[in-house]
Amino acid sequence: MWDTLWTDIHVATADPALISDQDGYGCIHHAAIGIENGRISWIGATSDLPDAPQNLAHKIHSGNGLWMTPGLVDAHTHVIYAGDRSLEFAERLNGVSYAEIARKGGGIISTVNATRTVSEDELFDVTARRVRRMIAEGTTTLEMKSGYGLTLQDELKQLRVARAIGASLPVRVHATFLGAHALPPEFKDRQDDYVSHLITDILPQAVEEKLIDSIDGFCENIAFTPDQIERLFIAAKDLKIPVRLHSEQLSNSGGTKLAARYGALSTDHLEYVVEDDVIDLAHAGTVAMLLPGAFYFIRETRMPPIDLFRKHNVPMGLATDCNPGTSPSVSLTGIMNMACTLFRMTPEETFSAVTRIGAQALRLQNITGHLATGQAADMLLWDIASPHELSYWIGGRRPVQRIFDGKLDPVI
Amino acid sequence: MWDTLWTDIHVATADPALISDQDGYGCIHHAAIGIENGRISWIGATSDLPDAPQNLAHKIHSGNGLWMTPGLVDAHTHVIYAGDRSLEFAERLNGVSYAEIARKGGGIISTVNATRTVSEDELFDVTARRVRRMIAEGTTTLEMKSGYGLTLQDELKQLRVARAIGASLPVRVHATFLGAHALPPEFKDRQDDYVSHLITDILPQAVEEKLIDSIDGFCENIAFTPDQIERLFIAAKDLKIPVRLHSEQLSNSGGTKLAARYGALSTDHLEYVVEDDVIDLAHAGTVAMLLPGAFYFIRETRMPPIDLFRKHNVPMGLATDCNPGTSPSVSLTGIMNMACTLFRMTPEETFSAVTRIGAQALRLQNITGHLATGQAADMLLWDIASPHELSYWIGGRRPVQRIFDGKLDPVI
Ligand SMILES: [Zn+2]
Ligand SMILES: [Zn+2]
Repeated sequence: MWDTLWTDIHVATADPALISDQDGYGCIHHAAIGIENGRISWIGATSDLPDAPQNLAHKIHSGNGLWMTPGLVDAHTHVIYAGDRSLEFAERLNGVSYAEIARKGGGIISTVNATRTVSEDELFDVTARRVRRMIAEGTTTLEMKSGYGLTLQDELKQLRVARAIGASLPVRVHATFLGAHALPPEFKDRQDDYVSHLITDILPQAVEEKLIDSIDGFCENIAFTPDQIERLFIAAKDLKIPVRLHSEQLSNSGGTKLAARYGALSTDHLEYVVEDDVIDLAHAGTVAMLLPGAFYFIRETRMPPIDLFRKHNVPMGLATDCNPGTSPSVSLTGIMNMACTLFRMTPEETFSAVTRIGAQALRLQNITGHLATGQAADMLLWDIASPHELSYWIGGRRPVQRIFDGKLDPVI
Repeated sequence: MWDTLWTDIHVATADPALISDQDGYGCIHHAAIGIENGRISWIGATSDLPDAPQNLAHKIHSGNGLWMTPGLVDAHTHVIYAGDRSLEFAERLNGVSYAEIARKGGGIISTVNATRTVSEDELFDVTARRVRRMIAEGTTTLEMKSGYGLTLQDELKQLRVARAIGASLPVRVHATFLGAHALPPEFKDRQDDYVSHLITDILPQAVEEKLIDSIDGFCENIAFTPDQIERLFIAAKDLKIPVRLHSEQLSNSGGTKLAARYGALSTDHLEYVVEDDVIDLAHAGTVAMLLPGAFYFIRETRMPPIDLFRKHNVPMGLATDCNPGTSPSVSLTGIMNMACTLFRMTPEETFSAVTRIGAQALRLQNITGHLATGQAADMLLWDIASPHELSYWIGGRRPVQRIFDGKLDPVI
């Protein structure tokens, strides 16, 4: 029935079947969780445990009365990159102008250059160091985007690193092709040609190597137009690969409506969406993936319309957006606090956002981001008085134990 | 000459003798540090090491090319408390009004009640759990305030816990008496009587037990007047105990000028100081202790005047202000990022602020917060490309090794 049993725990399940107006976490107090072959085979109140279950379990762990939650899902990251933008960060604060930094080759192009320059092994190493920090902060499922290569070989290099991370670290990986992240200098003034290159040359090869779980783009004045993104989405549809989109971060340029039309898994940022966009998201079942780390770091003032997402029952996800230019963040609990403090989301909403709804935006098999029978036993034990504490602290709140694929994981 | 030698490190010393316009960290590249009896006995470039030093060292550690910094100094915390305010945090975000929360006994008074209720042992336990997280984030020297007891026995209980933390965890503790934090309900409408009680009854007993390193107060419309604070400062002067003050956080009520007049070690918060206040701080040599965690958490909009502190060479410190109501924070690197992002301080300024200047505000023996011969060997090893990274990340950046009192410390 189970090979491992956790007892003396309280569980915040994030299970929609248990979540109610009175309990936004889906709690089971004084609970036990049985695990068999990496999956949850039993979950409930200890008092409901079948008789003499201990005889059946090879391993019994006590949670010492602490709280168990699902592993956290970080559903939007650009964590695969080389180079260091902290110097640029320091220069800005020391009064160097954006123009001057750009003239010296700073900004996103410096990350592209650094990522192109390193070998696949080197790129794996620097990425793995960051991902280990994410893991220590509670992440068990991770979306990883390409988009700093912008050539056939360098986009594939990034995507192979994503697969290698999934194969060698205790974390589930969803790899996203984001060739349409920025226009590479080689294609200056030839945006449409670059999109053709993505569709004709890079995408087929990446698909051939099974490197892609979804396709993303950056739809914005400073990036790609809705028409260009739509060409990419049509190609994705032909390949039966789901899409997602960076949209409405800095202005309303129509990306969100487009993405909804193509049934996107998520649309991300969304500071400038209007009610009509939100209604489309609701009809499409698309997740609104909110990224308060970038909002905070680049000092945005326009908030995504939380009330509209609530009104139309659009599921709100949260992610780190880990990237070197606008969100150097590895901590989902830090992001939960920002979502409460800056966006006025409730702690209950942020909890679903980094578990069940994050998973919904990734659609990995058996990874639904909540704790229930049949689900992968990716779980975290926290030294907290209640799940509210996960949102309450301004960072610095790590799980004390981590269970990945049913096994106690020593990574932390 | 040394019993332990660290080699293959880069050092950001925070040593004012090495800091220059070109290098705000006081760096020594390709460096070594010798330690004898817990103190730094040699520091410099490896190429300058005396011949055959290895023979003299019992232990040689390689830093593998990583960065060594001084241990971090958290010079303003209210970390000694019982109870849990995360429920109140959640209620607020779920739309419960302040008035309703106050009616249910929420706010600071709930922390006072919880802190009064627990035993000294229990208070030690819950505090130690938080302090261990601070230690993991890089703190090696910690200021701890009373101020949630507000009775003779409960203030002494808090201060004894501060001493016990210093005696049993690998962290240097400076204990601050903050009886003038809030008016306890027993003294309703008798503010002057309460100040008399502090001076006549609590202070002498605390001094008798050697529990106090400095005296603090909260000077604000909603707390104590400058006249009341001055009575306390006169008592402190008689006892030859240095003072510090929470001043000008929510309005300009004159506390900063008063504190400067009494040669305060620090004045803290300072959002509402004007240039005249800053000039007084400069003359008094008082540290401006800035607390961006509280600024962020309670969504203040008025920033402390960084440019005025720069103009008048007032040293800027940074601290977590760890407290359950307005800054649930244990991470000084998280605070460094907020100081850059929210206050536009430079990474170099934040580094001095949590090392040398933090130490200046505490005046502990041999703890000057920089790495130089004769100083306590409290040091951290970081997996970073440059010291800028300490400010650049939005939290989630912990040291990979910790050296406390010269010894490699396994706490992390
Ligand atoms: Zn992004
Ligand atoms: Zn304070």
